[in-house]
Amino acid sequence: MAPVGLSTPSDLLPVAGVALATTACGIKQSGRADLLLMRLDEGSRCAATFTRNAFCAAPVTLSRRHLGASPVRALLVNSGNANAGTGQRGLDDALQSCRKVADALHCEAGQVLVFSTGVIGEFLPMPCLLEGIETTAGQLHENSWLAAAEAIMTTDTVAKAVSEQVEIDGQRVTLTGIAKGSGMIHPDMATMLAFVATDADIEQSLLQVMLQRAVDSSFNAISVDGDTSTNDACVLVATGRSGVRIGENDASGALFEQALQAVCGHLARAIVRDGEGASKFVTIQVEQAQSEAEARQVAFTVAHSPLVKTALFASDPNWGRILAAVGRAGLGRLDVEKVRLFLGPVCIVEHGGVAAGYTEEQGQQVMDQDEISIRVELGRGEACTTVWTCDLSHQYVTINAEYRT
Amino acid sequence: MAPVGLSTPSDLLPVAGVALATTACGIKQSGRADLLLMRLDEGSRCAATFTRNAFCAAPVTLSRRHLGASPVRALLVNSGNANAGTGQRGLDDALQSCRKVADALHCEAGQVLVFSTGVIGEFLPMPCLLEGIETTAGQLHENSWLAAAEAIMTTDTVAKAVSEQVEIDGQRVTLTGIAKGSGMIHPDMATMLAFVATDADIEQSLLQVMLQRAVDSSFNAISVDGDTSTNDACVLVATGRSGVRIGENDASGALFEQALQAVCGHLARAIVRDGEGASKFVTIQVEQAQSEAEARQVAFTVAHSPLVKTALFASDPNWGRILAAVGRAGLGRLDVEKVRLFLGPVCIVEHGGVAAGYTEEQGQQVMDQDEISIRVELGRGEACTTVWTCDLSHQYVTINAEYRT
Repeated sequence: MAPVGLSTPSDLLPVAGVALATTACGIKQSGRADLLLMRLDEGSRCAATFTRNAFCAAPVTLSRRHLGASPVRALLVNSGNANAGTGQRGLDDALQSCRKVADALHCEAGQVLVFSTGVIGEFLPMPCLLEGIETTAGQLHENSWLAAAEAIMTTDTVAKAVSEQVEIDGQRVTLTGIAKGSGMIHPDMATMLAFVATDADIEQSLLQVMLQRAVDSSFNAISVDGDTSTNDACVLVATGRSGVRIGENDASGALFEQALQAVCGHLARAIVRDGEGASKFVTIQVEQAQSEAEARQVAFTVAHSPLVKTALFASDPNWGRILAAVGRAGLGRLDVEKVRLFLGPVCIVEHGGVAAGYTEEQGQQVMDQDEISIRVELGRGEACTTVWTCDLSHQYVTINAEYRT
Repeated sequence: MAPVGLSTPSDLLPVAGVALATTACGIKQSGRADLLLMRLDEGSRCAATFTRNAFCAAPVTLSRRHLGASPVRALLVNSGNANAGTGQRGLDDALQSCRKVADALHCEAGQVLVFSTGVIGEFLPMPCLLEGIETTAGQLHENSWLAAAEAIMTTDTVAKAVSEQVEIDGQRVTLTGIAKGSGMIHPDMATMLAFVATDADIEQSLLQVMLQRAVDSSFNAISVDGDTSTNDACVLVATGRSGVRIGENDASGALFEQALQAVCGHLARAIVRDGEGASKFVTIQVEQAQSEAEARQVAFTVAHSPLVKTALFASDPNWGRILAAVGRAGLGRLDVEKVRLFLGPVCIVEHGGVAAGYTEEQGQQVMDQDEISIRVELGRGEACTTVWTCDLSHQYVTINAEYRT
């Protein structure tokens, strides 16, 4: 199935201080690229967020440890195998990979982060992987971002990448990011990974804060569930090579953060647009909530409802299912009289029932689009949120019912 | 799709003091039976649990009100239309139905409970319904339990009913129950309704306590989600006509409660066996939890996971998906080293990875069955729970993507 309003990225910009190389080392049986090495110049800073799944994968455990210890000099990413559910041997394999990268790039093993995505519960083919590291270390280049985006794909049907430039104090700062992920709901084969690099100069603590905020409004706002998979990770690298210093409380910080959020938002929405079996791209806005947490609770209850998702697939303006999802979101003392639901611009529910003047034709017109917006007014506060999701199609069942290959 | 290990019920026993009648009054376009009237003898007591959905249907609002006010003398149930999302007019229609029943059976409108199940957001065809009440009131009979089970079906493919008898103090007590519901996850078209009657003599407060306990371990332990739909309800009627008094703290209470739980458990599992598109019946046991709440949290995370459900549909022993679901269930400080997963009798995961000696053939053998058990040992306490669910099939998407008829 073609992704919804998404094509192969172009015009990707190099980020000074970051060199990349990819290869097909043989993890994927298809013979496609499955290994990415990124070298970071000395002086680069690195922030990351990881999955909160208790059964986190070996590379997540190791990268968390390495991230806090010493400056990161390289990232290694393989696709086709998640190195998750692999116990002590998985950890040993991940560490061995770090050592190999360190040897090749003349740094310490503790300065290498590793990431894996693919099938759970199989051991990495270490001889192939080690040879692949050797190969990529000799081919590093600043312009290999598109190849990088392609090398981390699993069930993705299109590469996901974007660049932004922003002028700060008369100087240009560049951000380029790549991501992968195609799972719609609770992915495992289709773990989400994202890597964003910038040549801005940012303090470590500020880098982490800005990444967390950007992730909350992007990757954590799609129904891929950032805290779900065993391997999810998002990394932000700042090489400082533009010489532009980003402050916490001045215009530079606001400008940079805006650009960062644009990059993360684009990548997150690209993941939904290429969701497994997705035929619709759905924006869910919840407004007039008592808190943002409450708004998210309602938005995700609607986003995760199989009945809402199958109705979206069928282009069926079945507003009863949306209403039922809002009603069971667990909000205390929800006054249903004050709740209003909108499909696109059309008010479909008010005063506890179908809106006066609503016609099925109006709803059908909205549902026939590829991109659909659902808006919920709760009538009990000022907080709001937006999340993105896709529909639940036959293709989703087919993809996920197919035997592991 | 045929239900999993379930056929039309037989040997249903009448319950003294309860008379039933059904008719096809024209709510369902198919011409099938869509109305059930149950008359309860004077002196009957009635307990009920209702959906916790904030957008609860008009009949739920009204029945809640009537239940507390005066002794219940009749239950009216229609299928084919949920009378939900219908605002004030829906409430007026429900009240008018109660009045009509009261007229026909010579009681008060406040002594009638009403229940509806079917499509959300359409008004009841009141002329048909009122005529149907008239018809059924003239045909009440103690032996119409199977017809009653059939009249409340919507997307169900088979009627669900069961009888139990238990000897207490040398006297026989009878329980007969019917239920409907075919939704697998968060139903709306396929609201769950259950009605159980007994000729035991039980105090109102004890009746409610016993019903709540039985519902928690049956209807609230299947992934139909008792608190989800706009119309869910479970009613327990005790006519007292057997003359057997049930006490709270003696053998009679224990014996009766056991029989009640058997009836509710049978009906709840029947709903899962006939789940929309179900091809597998899955029992999920979680053991060694710190609390029952925690055990339920893990069990339902596994039960609701679309990836686990599609793997079950494909008969794929993809243990990584079960492991990932347990890992993201949100348990604080889960020691994954202590967690063990079993598929049927086969240990599939221990020490954070695949179990030593496990072979794909062992897992495949279990997954090829129609009835599958998944057992999770958390290794952190003594509490346990059991929930029941089914798989996620193409048929589920087809049923729920079809345009409302």
